[in-house]
Amino acid sequence: MIKQLMDKIEKTKAPICVGLDPMLSYIPEHVVARSFEQYGETLEGAADAIWQFNKEIIDCTWDLIPSVKPQIAMYEQFGIEGLKVYKKTVDYCQEKGLIVIGDAKRGDIGSTSAAYAAGHIGKVQVGSKTYSGFDTDFLTVNPYLGTDGVKPFVDVCKTNDKGLFILVKTSNPSSGEFQDKLIDGKPLYELVAEKVVEWGSDCMDGDYSNVGAVVGATYPEMSRILRKLMPHTYFLVPGYGAQGGTAEDLKYCFNEDGFGAVVNSSRGIIAAYKKDTYAKFGPEHFGEASRQAVIDMAADINRVL
Amino acid sequence: MIKQLMDKIEKTKAPICVGLDPMLSYIPEHVVARSFEQYGETLEGAADAIWQFNKEIIDCTWDLIPSVKPQIAMYEQFGIEGLKVYKKTVDYCQEKGLIVIGDAKRGDIGSTSAAYAAGHIGKVQVGSKTYSGFDTDFLTVNPYLGTDGVKPFVDVCKTNDKGLFILVKTSNPSSGEFQDKLIDGKPLYELVAEKVVEWGSDCMDGDYSNVGAVVGATYPEMSRILRKLMPHTYFLVPGYGAQGGTAEDLKYCFNEDGFGAVVNSSRGIIAAYKKDTYAKFGPEHFGEASRQAVIDMAADINRVL
Repeated sequence: MIKQLMDKIEKTKAPICVGLDPMLSYIPEHVVARSFEQYGETLEGAADAIWQFNKEIIDCTWDLIPSVKPQIAMYEQFGIEGLKVYKKTVDYCQEKGLIVIGDAKRGDIGSTSAAYAAGHIGKVQVGSKTYSGFDTDFLTVNPYLGTDGVKPFVDVCKTNDKGLFILVKTSNPSSGEFQDKLIDGKPLYELVAEKVVEWGSDCMDGDYSNVGAVVGATYPEMSRILRKLMPHTYFLVPGYGAQGGTAEDLKYCFNEDGFGAVVNSSRGIIAAYKKDTYAKFGPEHFGEASRQAVIDMAADINRVL
Repeated sequence: MIKQLMDKIEKTKAPICVGLDPMLSYIPEHVVARSFEQYGETLEGAADAIWQFNKEIIDCTWDLIPSVKPQIAMYEQFGIEGLKVYKKTVDYCQEKGLIVIGDAKRGDIGSTSAAYAAGHIGKVQVGSKTYSGFDTDFLTVNPYLGTDGVKPFVDVCKTNDKGLFILVKTSNPSSGEFQDKLIDGKPLYELVAEKVVEWGSDCMDGDYSNVGAVVGATYPEMSRILRKLMPHTYFLVPGYGAQGGTAEDLKYCFNEDGFGAVVNSSRGIIAAYKKDTYAKFGPEHFGEASRQAVIDMAADINRVL
C-alpha cells in the first residue's frame, strides 16, 4: 500500500495529503443554507452540508493530490448521520483514485483492536460473507497499550495490503508532556519509534514499510532524529500551516530519495477561501481557492526538497 | 455524574459494570439464525443479532447492576449498521436507568478531541439547535497526546455533568511496554495518574472527581500504589474474569469507604452460558445465565470488600 501512495506522490509531484476535517464554521454560508433548507437544522442537515463541501473540494483538487485524510471525529460528532458522510467521503475519494488515510487514532487491547482493524482497514465475517465497514487504505493508530494493542492492525495490513500511521510524536503543544519524557536517557517517542520499526519490519512494500509513523511538523529537531532512527518508515506529518509548521521545518521528515513523508494540511486547504491570500475567490468559489492552496502548498514543500 | 454512579452502586450493592462487547461468536445460534433469516448474512443482519442479544442481556440484568460499558469497536466493525446498534443499545440502557460508560478510548489534538467530546458526551451545534450524537454518561479517553488532547473532554464533563475514565494502567499483557517505563524513577502510568488527578481536581462531584481512571485488575500491585496516589479518583477496572483478574486482585482498587472502583466483566457475563458453570441454562436461556453470572460476580467482589 505504501508503494501505491509513493507512486501517486511521484505522479502528482506533491507529497501532500488534504485533511478533510470539516467544521460547520469552515463551510460557506450558502452551502449550509441549502442543506438546512432541504433537511432543516438537523444532524442530517449538518451532514449534508459537510458532504456538499467535501465533494466540491475533492472535485477541485483530486487530480493534483495523491491522498486525503478525513478526520473521523469531525463526522462522529454528528452521530450516525455524520458517520454516513464519513463513509460516503471515503468511497468517493477512492472512486477518484485517491489514497484515503482514515484518521481515527484507534487502539485498545488485542481483541478490541482486532475489531477496529476489521472495521476500518479489514473485513468482518458475517456468516459465510465478508464485508468492509469503512474500508480506508491507511489508518492512524495510538500505541499507548503496547504491542498486543497494535499487532491486530499490523496483521490486517499484511493480509489486506493496507497501511498504518502510528502516533510517535504528535504536533500539538502538549505532546511533550508524556512523549518527550526521558527513559534511560531517551525520550518516550524514540522508544515508540523503535517499536514502530520493529512492528513494520515484516511488512515491507518496496523500500518502505506499510507501518508508518505520525511525526508532527511542529517539532523539526525531533523529526530529524526520528528520520535517522526510522529510515524505512513513512511519516505522516500533521501540523503544517494552521498549526504553525513551515516548509523549512519539514525538510528533515524526508529522506534523500525525496520520499519518506506525506504532509497533511486541513484548515489551510479546505478553508483556504477564508484566508486573505485566497479571498479573491470568494465563498462561492471555495473549491477553486482550495485548488490554488494545494498548488501553493506543493510548491512550498518542493522548494525545500 | 460520578455521584449518580455511586448511588446506583450503593443501591444495587454491586460495584460492577457489564461489558456489552458482543462478538458474533458469543451470540447463540438461534439468535443469529433469526436475524439472518430476516436480513440475510449482511451487516444489517449481524447488527440485528447483536441488538437482540444485547436486549435480552439488559432485560435479564438491569435491575441488579448500576452500569454497562459498551465497547464501541465491537459495533464499529460492522460499519454504520453496527454503530446504529451501539446507539440503540446506549439509549435502551439509559431508558432502563443504567449508567452508560462508552468505551471508545478517543483522544487527539485539542480541536479534534473537542469534536469527539461533543459527539459522545456533549452536544453539537447545528444552526440554532443542539444535538447529541451518542450521548453516553461516561467516556474512556486515551492520554498519549497530553493535556490539550484531554482538556476538551474535561470541559464537557463540567458543562454537561458527564464523566471520564482516562487510561492509566491498562489490563492487557503488553501494557507495561510503555506504561511501566521509568521516568526519573517513576513509571509512566504514575505520571499519567498525577495528571489525571490534576485534570479532575476542579471536576469534583461529592468525594470523587468526574474524571476517573482505567486501572487493570491484572496488575494488583500497581493498583495498590495508584489507589494511594489518587484517593479521589474513581477506577474503572477491566480485566476481571476472562482476562485473569480475580476478586483478591481487586481489593486494592477500592478505598476504605467501600467505593472507588467499578469492575467490568464482558465475556464472563454476556457469554456466561458458554461456561461449564452456567451450561445448565442452555443457549436458549443465555440471558438467565448472564443474570446468574452477575449475581455470582457481585458476591465474589463483595466477599473481599
